[in-house]
Amino acid sequence: MSADDASPSPSREPAVEFLFGPLSTEAGRIDEARREKTGFFDLALLEPLDPRPGEPIRLRFRSGADVSLKRLRIFWTCDGSTPAWSDQFEAHPSTQTIEARPFIPEWDTLSWGFVQDWGADLPAQPDGTLLRYVAIGFGENNNAIPCPWPERDRHGTPHIAAVVVDRLEPPEWFRQAVIYQVLVDRFAPTPGETFAADLALDRRLGGTLWGLIERLDDLTDLGVDTLWLTPIFASPDYHGYAASSLFQVEPALGGESAWRELVQACRRRGLRLVLDFVANHVSDQHPAFVAAIASEESPTRSWFRFRHWPQDYDCFFNQRHQPEVDAENPDVGEYLIEAAVHALEARCDGFRLDYAHGLSHGFWSRFRAATRAAAPDCASFGEITQTPAVMRSYAGRMDGCLDFVLCSLLRETFARGRLPLSAFARGLERHYAFFGDSLVLPSFLDNHDMNRFLIVAEGDLRRLKVAALTQFLLPGPPIIYYGTEIGLSQKRPLGPLEEARLPMPPRESWNLELREFYRAVIKLRREASPSRLAPELLWVDDGSHSAAWRIGDLRLVLNCGEPRALSIGRATLKLTTFTPDASTTIDGSLMLPAWSGAVLTESGA
Amino acid sequence: MSADDASPSPSREPAVEFLFGPLSTEAGRIDEARREKTGFFDLALLEPLDPRPGEPIRLRFRSGADVSLKRLRIFWTCDGSTPAWSDQFEAHPSTQTIEARPFIPEWDTLSWGFVQDWGADLPAQPDGTLLRYVAIGFGENNNAIPCPWPERDRHGTPHIAAVVVDRLEPPEWFRQAVIYQVLVDRFAPTPGETFAADLALDRRLGGTLWGLIERLDDLTDLGVDTLWLTPIFASPDYHGYAASSLFQVEPALGGESAWRELVQACRRRGLRLVLDFVANHVSDQHPAFVAAIASEESPTRSWFRFRHWPQDYDCFFNQRHQPEVDAENPDVGEYLIEAAVHALEARCDGFRLDYAHGLSHGFWSRFRAATRAAAPDCASFGEITQTPAVMRSYAGRMDGCLDFVLCSLLRETFARGRLPLSAFARGLERHYAFFGDSLVLPSFLDNHDMNRFLIVAEGDLRRLKVAALTQFLLPGPPIIYYGTEIGLSQKRPLGPLEEARLPMPPRESWNLELREFYRAVIKLRREASPSRLAPELLWVDDGSHSAAWRIGDLRLVLNCGEPRALSIGRATLKLTTFTPDASTTIDGSLMLPAWSGAVLTESGA
Repeated sequence: MSADDASPSPSREPAVEFLFGPLSTEAGRIDEARREKTGFFDLALLEPLDPRPGEPIRLRFRSGADVSLKRLRIFWTCDGSTPAWSDQFEAHPSTQTIEARPFIPEWDTLSWGFVQDWGADLPAQPDGTLLRYVAIGFGENNNAIPCPWPERDRHGTPHIAAVVVDRLEPPEWFRQAVIYQVLVDRFAPTPGETFAADLALDRRLGGTLWGLIERLDDLTDLGVDTLWLTPIFASPDYHGYAASSLFQVEPALGGESAWRELVQACRRRGLRLVLDFVANHVSDQHPAFVAAIASEESPTRSWFRFRHWPQDYDCFFNQRHQPEVDAENPDVGEYLIEAAVHALEARCDGFRLDYAHGLSHGFWSRFRAATRAAAPDCASFGEITQTPAVMRSYAGRMDGCLDFVLCSLLRETFARGRLPLSAFARGLERHYAFFGDSLVLPSFLDNHDMNRFLIVAEGDLRRLKVAALTQFLLPGPPIIYYGTEIGLSQKRPLGPLEEARLPMPPRESWNLELREFYRAVIKLRREASPSRLAPELLWVDDGSHSAAWRIGDLRLVLNCGEPRALSIGRATLKLTTFTPDASTTIDGSLMLPAWSGAVLTESGA
Repeated sequence: MSADDASPSPSREPAVEFLFGPLSTEAGRIDEARREKTGFFDLALLEPLDPRPGEPIRLRFRSGADVSLKRLRIFWTCDGSTPAWSDQFEAHPSTQTIEARPFIPEWDTLSWGFVQDWGADLPAQPDGTLLRYVAIGFGENNNAIPCPWPERDRHGTPHIAAVVVDRLEPPEWFRQAVIYQVLVDRFAPTPGETFAADLALDRRLGGTLWGLIERLDDLTDLGVDTLWLTPIFASPDYHGYAASSLFQVEPALGGESAWRELVQACRRRGLRLVLDFVANHVSDQHPAFVAAIASEESPTRSWFRFRHWPQDYDCFFNQRHQPEVDAENPDVGEYLIEAAVHALEARCDGFRLDYAHGLSHGFWSRFRAATRAAAPDCASFGEITQTPAVMRSYAGRMDGCLDFVLCSLLRETFARGRLPLSAFARGLERHYAFFGDSLVLPSFLDNHDMNRFLIVAEGDLRRLKVAALTQFLLPGPPIIYYGTEIGLSQKRPLGPLEEARLPMPPRESWNLELREFYRAVIKLRREASPSRLAPELLWVDDGSHSAAWRIGDLRLVLNCGEPRALSIGRATLKLTTFTPDASTTIDGSLMLPAWSGAVLTESGA
């Protein structure tokens, strides 16, 4: 490649970061804000968010500014059976009904109309109850209008929503975890092998589970305790995000034997394994899809949503080789859940749920119940690149959600420097107040679908450190994207996502000073008892670009401006972190270099 | 004028009707939706909306996606004194304080941020209490941020909000009223005189109160019981919407003697008089403004908001001859309220409050208390061309608001034919559910600031009748804009507002058949006991453009499509309205011509 290709060109960084897909643009946000107030849909916002045994459950629906409903009736069961009714909408014996009540309409300026919300109160249920329900609206002329699940059920069949009433809490290990994300094909070749020489980034480069096993000691040395592996199931793609089987480990990654060996090696080191689980779509080489397009009579034809069989079907972001499955089809749901249980039996500890908002709340409720039944300590967290309101609606359906909101705040503030610290502080405070403890929110600075933090920060390691220090002192379990801790960046900005997926460089190219920094912040986090972390802003000054928070027993002080002395008021505070040029003075000042952070503790503590 | 000028050209009707000013455009609505979620402001939405003696009062505030507050403190008084505090924000003796509590933040997709609302609960108060309060926010660094009243207090002084706790209800006569809007200069010249020959529509044409007096019998014959007169106070403008005095009747309109005569003449006929009251701005010929720009030392300089004295000041829609007054200035408030009380002493029955959202909720609270004290049966209703949410926030501050929302629905559905009947029905239902009985909502098809209904309807009298029939069977007291009842239209669409303000034509040009129709619907409304009107949709069919509602004891059936027979199910219903070609058949069908409506009652009723 040419010298020009090799040099990062930050000017090519787009004005908008596409962390939220279409919602990253102004036009997309206007569309979405309008969509929130139009149509007929299940808000999927339970009250309480995560109903426990003995708590009545309020379901919430919306008939937007453009939909009239005279009545709204819920058909529901609590014995696992499918809600059923006659042509005259009389409930079958095992199905119960309840009328939703209209609330006072709300005005929506954007759609310039009144929005009608509805609530239906279901009685409290015992532990383990699977509640299933269908909402049917009745229009001006008593015409029935089944409530769809947004973006699904395009064929007009009523959507059967579901929620499991339980006492499940996120496992404690997950709350405490420090997670390392491994893109397996890009992390480490099998010992004795090397990455493919030509670096065609859209093909396999040769990373394997065998290679990963050999690097485990590095990772325990770094201090992480959990590995999130991008998909390892059989797949024609190097990244694995469209499987040809969910029951087999991809042979190119080392297959079953490497997996078994990895499990043993991790157990010996106290490392947990989280697998990437793609339930929204499969590869077009998956036998179910191959059969579905081979014959109209195939039993798996209904696994997929054909608009015109066989050539026109729903697929993931219009990529024809990634057909979407219909997880509301009971056979598909069973297949997916069996696959997850199989993975748990093969000793993984949990799942990162790819594109989780592609599947219904009801599916994830059942998924969680089944996986926790198979492995009580299993943790699942979703990738939901939607609004925080949508993210929060998955509370109780999974243990956590990847914190794209925090990711965006961290990058805008520290990598791009576009967000003043006061806005960052406000965002943090409201973010945690909004989510409460409804979901565990794993934090990250970058991942395989976005520019690495370091290229966005124009290669400035100081910015990366300030961001990472902040990340590791916030409540959510932190994730390190492979290589970020040793200074791996990109040749050029995205473009193709592959730019952010360069192979892990050989040890001699690592930035060991950065790695030491990461070791230190991981240690700091462990000592700080992460479950007690809750940032409270002490002061912020946009003029000098500095701010301080009380976080548990610590104080975090950031200086994103020129070198300066900051008054910290208490000479008894002890500097405990690892910014080489930082120091405290006897009169209660903290000397901080430009773009640095420090952590202080009470000297007695 | 040329023949071309005389023919209406509906193609010049703009795509958007500017009933809501900038909020009529897509861009304006996006801006407003964003504004609703940003900044720091008093939501002015009390809970309850109109607090009664003995009810605790919740005040609601918002610090939007872009404003951080650590705390929010209310300084309040209940003895009429001004809330006061020290530099250290310690309350003075007569002032009480309460801390507002933050609610759980809400997500806003449009501004892509979290919005923080606050609530402060004040204790219940006795009847007649004037509550005054100031909200002070404290930012990240405990910096004080006074809460402004939106769009006012541009100079950063804290806004003193106010609410009066009382048992006031809108007067019953107002709920029952049928109102006729008279633009005095355009209605009738003094007997023996004629309108100015040249019809320069931006100057006085010669209508007077003397002329109006002579037409009162026509109006009582029509059946109206209340006259709303556009401003009659001294003013250099023909329309009077910027006064040079609020204590003198404009001589060109007949002066005080004509007013006294009009009052007597109306009383004899049982007609009530509502005066247009412009509190937001005055004429630049008003002595207070003349003095204010003559000398910096003038006591009335502070009546106006000068950005740079004397040439740069806030004025109404940037019209320099209409300077805005600062009604939060106690002298101005007193002047305005004295003027209103003076008009009540001169025997008017109430006020139409021009551009009411230009003044604060607190001002109108005090205005209402003072005017009702002077005349217990006084009714006031505001012109608020803002969102329904803003309109509703004025509940308890005035008796009613002009129903621009319904006006828009009626015009879009019946004049422009752009809104299907199902959307009209949905709008109606949610509109009434949203407002409840918080405000009386006078209805209208047109007024002096918009194209007349008839030109929008391309001259189609059938559409006007269907709209008027509907208007008169809805709960709000109906308003007829002078001339609409006899077919007065326009030479051309707006353009200048004057196009909608042609002089009332001589009797020989009246459409007497239309006037008979109006007489009939007024009679129908009176018999139907308007206070019991509440539309309940029976059915709607967008295919055939027909719909029916139950309204009190009546059924309203509309056919906005081709002539057809509509099944009404009950042969016992009696046709009672006045569509010549409508008829019922013995088998329970109703024959309706194209673009017509009918009203049915139980034959026994």
